[in-house]
Amino acid sequence: MKGKIQPKTLPGFMELLPNEQILFNKMRAIIQESYEQYGFVPLDTPIIEDANVLLAKAGGETEKQIYRFEKGDTDLALRFDLTVPLAKYVTEYYDKLSFPFKRYQIGKVYRGEKPQRGRYREFYQCDVDIIGDGELSIINDAEIPSIIYNTFKKLGFDDFTICINNRKILNGLFSSLKLEDISSEILRIIDKIEKIGKEEVKKELLVLMPEKKANVIIKFLGIGGNNEEKIKELENMQINNEIFNEGIKEIKEVSKFIEIFGVPEENYKIDLSIARGLDYYTGTVYETFLNQYKNLGSICSGGRYDNLTEFYTDRKMPGVGISIGLSRLFFQLIDNKIISATEETIAEVLIISMTDDCEMCAKVAAKLREKGINVQINIEQQKIGKKFKYANNINANYVIIIGDEEIKNNVITLKDMNSGEQNTITLDETIKILQKNKK
Amino acid sequence: MKGKIQPKTLPGFMELLPNEQILFNKMRAIIQESYEQYGFVPLDTPIIEDANVLLAKAGGETEKQIYRFEKGDTDLALRFDLTVPLAKYVTEYYDKLSFPFKRYQIGKVYRGEKPQRGRYREFYQCDVDIIGDGELSIINDAEIPSIIYNTFKKLGFDDFTICINNRKILNGLFSSLKLEDISSEILRIIDKIEKIGKEEVKKELLVLMPEKKANVIIKFLGIGGNNEEKIKELENMQINNEIFNEGIKEIKEVSKFIEIFGVPEENYKIDLSIARGLDYYTGTVYETFLNQYKNLGSICSGGRYDNLTEFYTDRKMPGVGISIGLSRLFFQLIDNKIISATEETIAEVLIISMTDDCEMCAKVAAKLREKGINVQINIEQQKIGKKFKYANNINANYVIIIGDEEIKNNVITLKDMNSGEQNTITLDETIKILQKNKK
Repeated sequence: MKGKIQPKTLPGFMELLPNEQILFNKMRAIIQESYEQYGFVPLDTPIIEDANVLLAKAGGETEKQIYRFEKGDTDLALRFDLTVPLAKYVTEYYDKLSFPFKRYQIGKVYRGEKPQRGRYREFYQCDVDIIGDGELSIINDAEIPSIIYNTFKKLGFDDFTICINNRKILNGLFSSLKLEDISSEILRIIDKIEKIGKEEVKKELLVLMPEKKANVIIKFLGIGGNNEEKIKELENMQINNEIFNEGIKEIKEVSKFIEIFGVPEENYKIDLSIARGLDYYTGTVYETFLNQYKNLGSICSGGRYDNLTEFYTDRKMPGVGISIGLSRLFFQLIDNKIISATEETIAEVLIISMTDDCEMCAKVAAKLREKGINVQINIEQQKIGKKFKYANNINANYVIIIGDEEIKNNVITLKDMNSGEQNTITLDETIKILQKNKK
Repeated sequence: MKGKIQPKTLPGFMELLPNEQILFNKMRAIIQESYEQYGFVPLDTPIIEDANVLLAKAGGETEKQIYRFEKGDTDLALRFDLTVPLAKYVTEYYDKLSFPFKRYQIGKVYRGEKPQRGRYREFYQCDVDIIGDGELSIINDAEIPSIIYNTFKKLGFDDFTICINNRKILNGLFSSLKLEDISSEILRIIDKIEKIGKEEVKKELLVLMPEKKANVIIKFLGIGGNNEEKIKELENMQINNEIFNEGIKEIKEVSKFIEIFGVPEENYKIDLSIARGLDYYTGTVYETFLNQYKNLGSICSGGRYDNLTEFYTDRKMPGVGISIGLSRLFFQLIDNKIISATEETIAEVLIISMTDDCEMCAKVAAKLREKGINVQINIEQQKIGKKFKYANNINANYVIIIGDEEIKNNVITLKDMNSGEQNTITLDETIKILQKNKK
């Protein structure tokens, strides 16, 4: 390798082998199809934006992680999520869009995090958001869990729970305790309850407030029962705070409509400890967990926000949305052997030529493709064993073998790679079998 | 807008309105489906690569246009095509891949060109390549035009021509004239023949060579007739050069198999003036033109190359492939009114609520989605006129109207937005109509 450059993909950048890529793309296609079922239109904003536009809102961690650079005189940055570009888009094209504006976007985003196992610097987000012009009905907040439910069902999952909460309940509670000034700190502590447990949360809360107030929060977090019982208990807390009561009213309405939208009770629940770190959210919030793999963390999160576009315009544009971090999710699912890509294939049929005369191979390939079948041909100068190994490697379901005998008799030898069965038949018979067994 | 940042997309970056994006994505999906029919597997390499890996081969124009920047200590660059990342990929994962390796990649690439109408700094390329290990059968060169043909047919085009040539013919001719040292210059002049005409080409050639040699080239470029006649004339030139004769043999074989692969004669032709600027290509080359819109230039180009991976490994890995520059093509097709996005839609049905009671809307939406129909609901506090305008804007095929009367009688008012016909019917009848008219 003298004088050669070592071809190396950067650390923290996902690059898959073909089988895995096929499966990844299938999942992406299912998510897209599911989003479209709800009438969301696609959007594809640039990966590069003016740094000042992109960083209008950002600060702290985001600013440190961002890929930012100059080209000519322009200060550029790579998008670090799909939400800021959406805010830019709805403000920039406001006059040309119809509201409520429902869009999905599936694309790569960039964060220069320290590379860790399963954490990527370039990763896919799959977002849906509904943006209102001035107002946005709370029923939209109930449709979102239905999207989550249908998407994960279509992805093949059954045992998952969509957890919902409402930031107004939390904020109203803190306000009634005169703790609103430290609400972000409290939220950050509450967010850890699954990980560190109630005792530790209380300890951390006591650093910030007297025991009486900490006890109210702990009692609040302990509210149990089914969704209806939880709402009743919240009402029974008799907290005289407008925001708190608005939050209860909203979560009640959202719960009611989640059911009407067809989400089974076992797949969603009110979870009062869910806060979502971001300051961003102002109402309903969502997290989604695989019940058998809670350690994966939330696999689909989001919420309601009132001030999406505040850095670009005075116009009020409330929204609600969710995001699936597909690259990370895919890694986790493969890593935990929840899904496997070993059987994935694109070519349903591989045609193998056993002779130098490739005319019939080409003819048969053209004919099968005309019939909508994915066909690959191998007309290389390779030994027959190597060609069959190739068929195995690409997971072809069928192999068509064409040699001198087949050409002479105008027939085809078709081998079913799963059963091992092999028959010499006509092209028409072959088409019938392949169409019947099309996946 | 005091204190606000103006939300602005960078010049040279394509950003579409929803209708156009829907059409763009449809075209992308058709290309993908067509590529998969030939057994190509998907690949998705990072947009950011190590600058040294990416620029191993580049120089000149590419180096100037590239987006290159540092993050920490790492010298990074954004990919400027999908071919170099493929070379990296097949070398890096050589042991895990099966050859011939057939992959497609559809993704964004970056070139900091001067922004011009229809020229983008971020644009989609849709590539297929077949990479051999050591050798690669010439039949693959004939399968490529069949991919081009089927892809553009599926995109809705009929009147296009795939032009093929072979660089060996050109190189052999120059070599026989002892002009091999200035072959790139000659190729650049020849490439302009469509634009500037034969006379101008000759003038430019005369700057570089004596008239006798220029006449041979001009005579060569004037070879006419159908494909068979062209090959015969080439053979009749009696040029005693091994490369030249190899080129004829190859183009003969490729022509023969293009037909066997099912490409009609009116959709391909041998065009001896096609050279493709890039040094890169070593055998068959392709360009594709819409016959009614030749001014658009080639809409799909590519060719055979012998040394894809030479900067990374001593292993010989020949390949053949093509690329569709989808962003530019899309712009051109819209701009020339060859395609139109005004009728595009995602939501087949919009449900409009005429009352504050949204339960039935949600129930009907859930039911229709269960039946595979794309449904959007509008439950906002908007006037009915505004809601119908919304239905028009999103191009919904049907509107379902649910008011107090419908709720009371458990029926639905279904309006066909194309015919204007409106009927009050049951949910089951609605489902039947929508499923029958599903697009």
